[in-house]
Amino acid sequence: MPFVNIKITRDGATPGQKAELIKGVTDLLVKVLRKNPATTVVVIDEVETDNWGIGGETVSVIRRKSK
Amino acid sequence: MPFVNIKITRDGATPGQKAELIKGVTDLLVKVLRKNPATTVVVIDEVETDNWGIGGETVSVIRRKSK
Amino acid sequence: MPFVNIKITRDGATPGQKAELIKGVTDLLVKVLRKNPATTVVVIDEVETDNWGIGGETVSVIRRKSK
Amino acid sequence: MPFVNIKITRDGATPGQKAELIKGVTDLLVKVLRKNPATTVVVIDEVETDNWGIGGETVSVIRRKSK
Amino acid sequence: MPFVNIKITRDGATPGQKAELIKGVTDLLVKVLRKNPATTVVVIDEVETDNWGIGGETVSVIRRKSK
Amino acid sequence: MPFVNIKITRDGATPGQKAELIKGVTDLLVKVLRKNPATTVVVIDEVETDNWGIGGETVSVIRRKSK
Repeated sequence: MPFVNIKITRDGATPGQKAELIKGVTDLLVKVLRKNPATTVVVIDEVETDNWGIGGETVSVIRRKSK
Repeated sequence: MPFVNIKITRDGATPGQKAELIKGVTDLLVKVLRKNPATTVVVIDEVETDNWGIGGETVSVIRRKSK
Repeated sequence: MPFVNIKITRDGATPGQKAELIKGVTDLLVKVLRKNPATTVVVIDEVETDNWGIGGETVSVIRRKSK
Repeated sequence: MPFVNIKITRDGATPGQKAELIKGVTDLLVKVLRKNPATTVVVIDEVETDNWGIGGETVSVIRRKSK
Repeated sequence: MPFVNIKITRDGATPGQKAELIKGVTDLLVKVLRKNPATTVVVIDEVETDNWGIGGETVSVIRRKSK
Repeated sequence: MPFVNIKITRDGATPGQKAELIKGVTDLLVKVLRKNPATTVVVIDEVETDNWGIGGETVSVIRRKSK
């Protein structure tokens, strides 16, 4: 019955990679806490790099500087 | 003053249906807890089926299988 | 399959009131969007009034002023 | 190490304004709680006005009425 | 740089189990998306069973019925 | 009308510090985006260090190691 929300920057994660994340997190909750996978929900949010900040700067700016 | 976040898969909910959800949840909070509707905020997130997992699989895959 | 998060201030909502909120939101999603209630999850967060702000002030301060 | 999520309606906030929000919130957490800015994450969600409700109505409807 | 929020019912998960979840989710994000573990944040929310609903009922009520 | 959620570890932030955060974030949204402070909501979550992970470890473990 757990609910998991994964937030990542929008960077071209493929449907296959997202399916792998969902499978992996669900299996982990079953293994560690014996949760029921049938009602385990995982939602992935992909966030534009202009909208994600770390260290006080947006990821867009950080990447531009690091080029 | 409550804040409500509703996450659903992106499946063509119309503006009218979303307005109905917002009205319904707000009315419910007024009725059950006598909350002030004027400052009750409801935010709906519509999530791509590739990004929503249940039972360890994405909704995209589940739907493909069930066709 | 929807996921709903309701945030309210911690003000003595009873288990019965919380059950009523959960029932009401689930019924609403079934009625408006024909969602499957069996996998509809509702989580209520009760937040201390020191930790909830509106209009730039905490609810604790607002209530003290209004006494 | 804090995590901050800012939800606003999608109303044309510019990359510069979003960068200013991220910088401002990070600085605030450093000033008030001496948090480490290097691991302070800020994520901004911009939400369609059809999906944001206040007072039981969507922002789309409220704006239409107020014109 | 990802942020993960795991919501589970408060059911006596031990510090060791929570550490295992955090390690597992972080490793998964490194493996699948090559994310930087140093800035990967995982936050676990443990929710009272009165505050968690599924199928329109609280977990407290469901468990009482199933005894 | 914005909604802001600030997650920090539970480390003895005082009511005064939390009020300062709430005031600061609200002022920032008014200044940068001309948002209406009256309907700007800020919610602070304080999370146990056993439930917060970074770099694949809980903050509890990281602090124990660094002593």
